[in-house]
Amino acid sequence: MEAEVGASTRDPGDRALVTDLYQLTMLKGYWDHGMNEVATFELFVRRLPPGRNFLLAAGLAPALDYLEGLRFEPDELAWLREQPGFLAAFVDWLGELRFTGDVHAMPEGTVFFPEEPVLRVTAPLPEAQLVETRLISLINFSSLIASKAVRFPLAAPETVLVDFGLRRSHGAEAGLLAARAAYLAGFDGTATASAGQRWGIPTYGTMAHSFVQAHESETEAFLRFARAHPDNAVLLIDTYDTEAGAETVVRIASQLRSEGIEVAGVRLDSGDLADHAHRVRRILDEGGCPGVRIFASSSLDEQAVANLVRAPIDGFGVGSALTVSTDAPTLDSVYKLQEYAGRPRRKRSEGKATWPGRKQVFRRYADGVAVGDILALEDEAPGGEPLLRPVMRSGQRLGSGPTLGEIRDRVRRSCASLPGELRALEPAGTVYRVEASGGVRALAAQADRAHATAAGA
Amino acid sequence: MEAEVGASTRDPGDRALVTDLYQLTMLKGYWDHGMNEVATFELFVRRLPPGRNFLLAAGLAPALDYLEGLRFEPDELAWLREQPGFLAAFVDWLGELRFTGDVHAMPEGTVFFPEEPVLRVTAPLPEAQLVETRLISLINFSSLIASKAVRFPLAAPETVLVDFGLRRSHGAEAGLLAARAAYLAGFDGTATASAGQRWGIPTYGTMAHSFVQAHESETEAFLRFARAHPDNAVLLIDTYDTEAGAETVVRIASQLRSEGIEVAGVRLDSGDLADHAHRVRRILDEGGCPGVRIFASSSLDEQAVANLVRAPIDGFGVGSALTVSTDAPTLDSVYKLQEYAGRPRRKRSEGKATWPGRKQVFRRYADGVAVGDILALEDEAPGGEPLLRPVMRSGQRLGSGPTLGEIRDRVRRSCASLPGELRALEPAGTVYRVEASGGVRALAAQADRAHATAAGA
Repeated sequence: MEAEVGASTRDPGDRALVTDLYQLTMLKGYWDHGMNEVATFELFVRRLPPGRNFLLAAGLAPALDYLEGLRFEPDELAWLREQPGFLAAFVDWLGELRFTGDVHAMPEGTVFFPEEPVLRVTAPLPEAQLVETRLISLINFSSLIASKAVRFPLAAPETVLVDFGLRRSHGAEAGLLAARAAYLAGFDGTATASAGQRWGIPTYGTMAHSFVQAHESETEAFLRFARAHPDNAVLLIDTYDTEAGAETVVRIASQLRSEGIEVAGVRLDSGDLADHAHRVRRILDEGGCPGVRIFASSSLDEQAVANLVRAPIDGFGVGSALTVSTDAPTLDSVYKLQEYAGRPRRKRSEGKATWPGRKQVFRRYADGVAVGDILALEDEAPGGEPLLRPVMRSGQRLGSGPTLGEIRDRVRRSCASLPGELRALEPAGTVYRVEASGGVRALAAQADRAHATAAGA
Repeated sequence: MEAEVGASTRDPGDRALVTDLYQLTMLKGYWDHGMNEVATFELFVRRLPPGRNFLLAAGLAPALDYLEGLRFEPDELAWLREQPGFLAAFVDWLGELRFTGDVHAMPEGTVFFPEEPVLRVTAPLPEAQLVETRLISLINFSSLIASKAVRFPLAAPETVLVDFGLRRSHGAEAGLLAARAAYLAGFDGTATASAGQRWGIPTYGTMAHSFVQAHESETEAFLRFARAHPDNAVLLIDTYDTEAGAETVVRIASQLRSEGIEVAGVRLDSGDLADHAHRVRRILDEGGCPGVRIFASSSLDEQAVANLVRAPIDGFGVGSALTVSTDAPTLDSVYKLQEYAGRPRRKRSEGKATWPGRKQVFRRYADGVAVGDILALEDEAPGGEPLLRPVMRSGQRLGSGPTLGEIRDRVRRSCASLPGELRALEPAGTVYRVEASGGVRALAAQADRAHATAAGA
């Protein structure tokens, strides 16, 4: 049963001090001078990871949870009072701070590209500043994993795909958010029990080698497990010898059948998986067990899964390649001030210049296929589908947000509209076109002129 | 002020359902048959990540917090009752389950190598089984980051090193644990405010580009920031033009000095850092600001830091290279059953066979330099320093554990005892020697014979 995305309780990672100290030293500077006018920040990725053709937006629901719940707890304020440079009156003011701004964002499951804002915050400067670190963390990580996860169903669309990666995730929050991101990107479920409880994601669980080892024989282990889980007996057959394990399954299958139990499947976890799958399939078929399905795991990434699609394997468990995104374990996400007090702002650091102003992303289609995006000012109308939508006003969510099922549908639609070569695992020959509009370019020039004047003054 | 490591409160990631569902399906099998005898599991890493010469044990204190607090909460039990295959009586039994076992572990900050248990759990089988996922997650991640972090002070021992990586960490728990792991491995502090509150780790915070951009001029931003933080004014000078920023610092320094404020430092965050550092140093020195220190950040890894040690840079902020360990973002950690009901157990899967029995790691030294480790049975005495120590008995911690300062000392000692070529950033020409003792080999043969007999029976 699927819970509403918006229904999750406030996450402990959302404590206000889970931020960079410099947000607070800057807030002290803003507070000294009453710099409380409206600022617009945009969150975007600077470049694609090597070998990737597109990204998938995710993490918005947790990010909105964070913004709605933002406040410093008494123990956090007490710690701040002890830190050098923070006056008591400033800390008192922090204690009253809530997020009262507006947020526009791409819905979770939207395909996006570098330079495109996936989230835009418009709020009094200190509020918009303070939330930088946690917003980047939540959007960056969920988008990282969703963008990795979606490659698996693209590689093996007919296969059952399960997240096995909690143990190698970078901590519990990572494991939970990865289970969610993988599911919304097209995985069938997760082994992480807590993700089942929290979001209603389907959970999968069988047995580890230790279960087999703890018994005096594999036969005894298999019989006991099947009787403990008569409706979902998936047996791990490689603890000692994979083919011998398959023969054991055949041997006990008729006995179990007489008890009304059908073995649901076997799992392979070592060696040459394609070779073992063929041998095991034959043993099972010839032994009268054609209905027993074969699952595989063992350090699989999407390329390994793609290479196994012709093997008789019905499902895959994927670990760290998914939940750590080992080939590209980070996105270059940033959150940049684009407007303050009604005036455009532009960072011009070498290799890191930004486009100023409140922006919108317009996607154009030809015959249902996306042909290019335009990064325009919010009030320009270059044509195409606007991807950023209002999701929070004055600190309040607009609606409860989509269910995970609705996000999964969006992922399918968003990916289906991509040019075919972008959906391949291999790097595409051409880069998807993202252009800055005339309005954005003119505003950048204006910001540069204004800065030159101020610097010269 | 440094808090006691053991004093941290139970982490929300420590909820009992933050585990793989298969732990629970296996527990159901154990419960059905009263399989409650004592099991020994060992946690070890199967191989070194590419390019690394050694690993650093970390994460024990959070792991012991988890074991001490382990229990299913009512909402978790309610969810379990709704899942197929879990009888009410089984779920009631889970509700009573606590961790009552013994733990031996390498102290945090110990250098270790593949195949060596860093943690050994001896407990009734269901307890020892259930905790697998979370123990791997905590030890694996903290050891991953500590093993990465220690390479930075090895590359630049005289430099101030600060963790800037929260925003790119895989979630909040990752960011917090990374700050802790980096500090114990030799970093000077972190930008993560919450890590300061929680563990007393020194926190560092300056300003972002947005602070500069929000002001009408860089001069105004610098003056305001310095007045807001008169004792720690570190100014980010690359928002528009690095050298012009340095000249602005020189221009305002005398004015600030007349107010009793000394600019503490500047930060560079883009372009050729060595080149900028030399130019900025000259501008500052010639402008009468020789005491202003230079800090640098911008996608730095340990090799980049090593390449910059001759530049006039006093400190570095390190982001995702540290907190994601981007070059090797996962360790191949496993947790394996080695003994049950007094008998050795051995997994023999292809390429994944394990050494059975309750083991100890003995490190031998010659003239203070570690020359090799022996993986022996607990009751063998091959000579050398035993690295695993008792840390928990019957579910209770033995003592409050070392402070982070004591762990930092252990890291220094443990690294100093390594052969010199293992401390280099480059892969060592020779592999550190880890041998299985005669007792371990004999036990493996015995386990294999016992299994063959059982299988043939």
